[in-house]
Amino acid sequence: MAQRPDLPAGGPGGLIGIGIGPEPGPGCGTRAAVVDGPGPYGGVPEAAPGDGATAGQALAAYLHDRSGDFLRSLRQHRESGSDADGAEAAARQLRRAARRISATLHTFRPLTEEAWSDQLRAELGWLSGTLAREHALADRRDRLMGALQRLTGRTDRPQPAGRATGRGERTAAARSAVPARGRADAGTEPAEAADGPDGDGLLSTGAARAAALLDRQLTLARSRAHSAALQALGSARFHALADAVAVLASEAPPARAAGTAAAAGALLPLAENAHRRLAEAVAALPPARAGHAYPSDALSAEHRQDTPWHQVRTLVRLSRYAQEVVAPGRADPRLAEAGRALGRHRDAAEAASAAASAARTPRIAPATAYALGVLHADQRHEVAAARHAFSRLWLPGPAPESRWG
Amino acid sequence: MAQRPDLPAGGPGGLIGIGIGPEPGPGCGTRAAVVDGPGPYGGVPEAAPGDGATAGQALAAYLHDRSGDFLRSLRQHRESGSDADGAEAAARQLRRAARRISATLHTFRPLTEEAWSDQLRAELGWLSGTLAREHALADRRDRLMGALQRLTGRTDRPQPAGRATGRGERTAAARSAVPARGRADAGTEPAEAADGPDGDGLLSTGAARAAALLDRQLTLARSRAHSAALQALGSARFHALADAVAVLASEAPPARAAGTAAAAGALLPLAENAHRRLAEAVAALPPARAGHAYPSDALSAEHRQDTPWHQVRTLVRLSRYAQEVVAPGRADPRLAEAGRALGRHRDAAEAASAAASAARTPRIAPATAYALGVLHADQRHEVAAARHAFSRLWLPGPAPESRWG
Repeated sequence: MAQRPDLPAGGPGGLIGIGIGPEPGPGCGTRAAVVDGPGPYGGVPEAAPGDGATAGQALAAYLHDRSGDFLRSLRQHRESGSDADGAEAAARQLRRAARRISATLHTFRPLTEEAWSDQLRAELGWLSGTLAREHALADRRDRLMGALQRLTGRTDRPQPAGRATGRGERTAAARSAVPARGRADAGTEPAEAADGPDGDGLLSTGAARAAALLDRQLTLARSRAHSAALQALGSARFHALADAVAVLASEAPPARAAGTAAAAGALLPLAENAHRRLAEAVAALPPARAGHAYPSDALSAEHRQDTPWHQVRTLVRLSRYAQEVVAPGRADPRLAEAGRALGRHRDAAEAASAAASAARTPRIAPATAYALGVLHADQRHEVAAARHAFSRLWLPGPAPESRWG
Repeated sequence: MAQRPDLPAGGPGGLIGIGIGPEPGPGCGTRAAVVDGPGPYGGVPEAAPGDGATAGQALAAYLHDRSGDFLRSLRQHRESGSDADGAEAAARQLRRAARRISATLHTFRPLTEEAWSDQLRAELGWLSGTLAREHALADRRDRLMGALQRLTGRTDRPQPAGRATGRGERTAAARSAVPARGRADAGTEPAEAADGPDGDGLLSTGAARAAALLDRQLTLARSRAHSAALQALGSARFHALADAVAVLASEAPPARAAGTAAAAGALLPLAENAHRRLAEAVAALPPARAGHAYPSDALSAEHRQDTPWHQVRTLVRLSRYAQEVVAPGRADPRLAEAGRALGRHRDAAEAASAAASAARTPRIAPATAYALGVLHADQRHEVAAARHAFSRLWLPGPAPESRWG
């Protein structure tokens, strides 16, 4: 199958060539044709990994590497001792490897022994989720503190309250902890003291209290997540998982009939399936929202539509990791960038939820609730901005930055 | 002076041809040259009004017409009786005429007897301001109710509380008053009752209460403004003003030396001055904001920058009315549209202030304050959208709508 010359933004593998228009129009037919048409890897069988190797061998090679990464980062995590930054970096690497192993087992599931594959994926998902929670909460706290600071134009930020949990002072936290004098002042002044004509005083008083509230809530949740992660890493369940990954690092995965098929023949259709599922999910996204710089209802129905966007984020990952298996070294940077936009989307959506959830805390001051409302709306607009950024990446054609940078 | 062919969006009179870039760059030199260079009317002296007429005659003709409009709408206002819609329309016409007379006296001040002109302008400003307040408050209430409804995805809106003040039921209000059942329910349910995972319940409970609060506050302010307007229209001060306008409707305005100069020679430089002041004010707007779809700090320093934007709105009006005097029938629709964008800017900025101000009401529930915070942020984003729209109109070059709808 030849590369289609009529896809303007095909790029490496043509992964971004399947665009969604901001609204259904003449592009619809084209889109459907592209989704159903030749996939991104169809034109490049000569670039498939391990020419002459079987699909099983190619898959095993990728899984060996990722399992090696997994075991290496596990060792680094154990050796990090009181170095919280080192432990965090090692945990990120561990999750990175776990995600790739899991995604590969998912995409190429028909080539492996399915019961084994599903069981391993479930355990990897459990580990990733457990480890991710702590870091997600730390990042969410930082994001919300930063947003409050930006919204009020303040330069001080609250001292992290007990972010060092069991692993000594986090260097990053220590770096960002500039003196919190201004905030202490704002916390004690009456709500009416510094009110400008547009609620400046109200917002900064409320923001200081909202920051303290969110800091308390998210730090508490984070230290619980930290304990849960430590507990998980010491559990028999984890050791069984580490053993399974250690086997995968040296031996071929339990394979099915496809073991003797050529790599290109068996791997490519499955990778194409992953990409097709992604393209279909993108095409099914609520069309009127994509590409609107100022969605008129960014705050109402929008957040009920987060789920399909989160789903697209997962599918972007599956597609990206599948590309790593079948076309190593030819990663499309735009696919990675689309993934980052959807990561920001997820982070902003969860931060908006955290602000809304903090506003339900009983007995908070109206000024605090007001600031949390402003913060919620701000994060929902970041959600809209991330959707806009994703659509801009996904749409073929010249980027509008050239004009509107 | 010839029309400059290098101005891509010169249009009628070239009024929009003086662009501001989203950031200072290679365009700066060009911009300065255009501001200092030939003005918008320089190339078309043959289109000046009343060829052969003196500047005084041309000015008098325009002022006669506008004064006639003023007196006609004053009569309509008096005759409207209990027809609130008719009275509102007449008051809008009255303000429209008053604005034009005042702007003309301002722009062409050197051609008139200045003490007389300044005094008349002051009185017209007083009248416009007094009449505008009532309608601005009614519009602000409608804008905020609409925004709350949009934010929560509700289809009901609170029944206007006493919007009919002294002039009988307003038909428009009656039209928009759909049954408010849902709101009454929401007002009595506990804050925690219908909370979705993302604060849906919190927002709708809070929004119902915020709507009731804003409705009460703005309706009260509006009926005070209505009384003040009625009082103004019955005052001796108003009768003196109406007399002065009646004189202006038939006699030439008290003139200075320029009475015998040719219209084109005396009027055009003054109209060009008005446009130059506008272009300079636009060029002096905070540059990094213009054209940013998602200003990263839309809510912080932004609203302290409202004043220069409000100033530009006034200057757009002065330029537009000056164009009506010197080039009647050749109005640039983009200048009117830019004025409308800046009108939306002002309305959204004032609505955001009203939301912030309502959040300072003592003893409101946190849910109410939360909804007011969301509402404030929403209106500040409308401010940013209006700035974006203005910049898009003002910038020369192809409109991005062609791509981004």
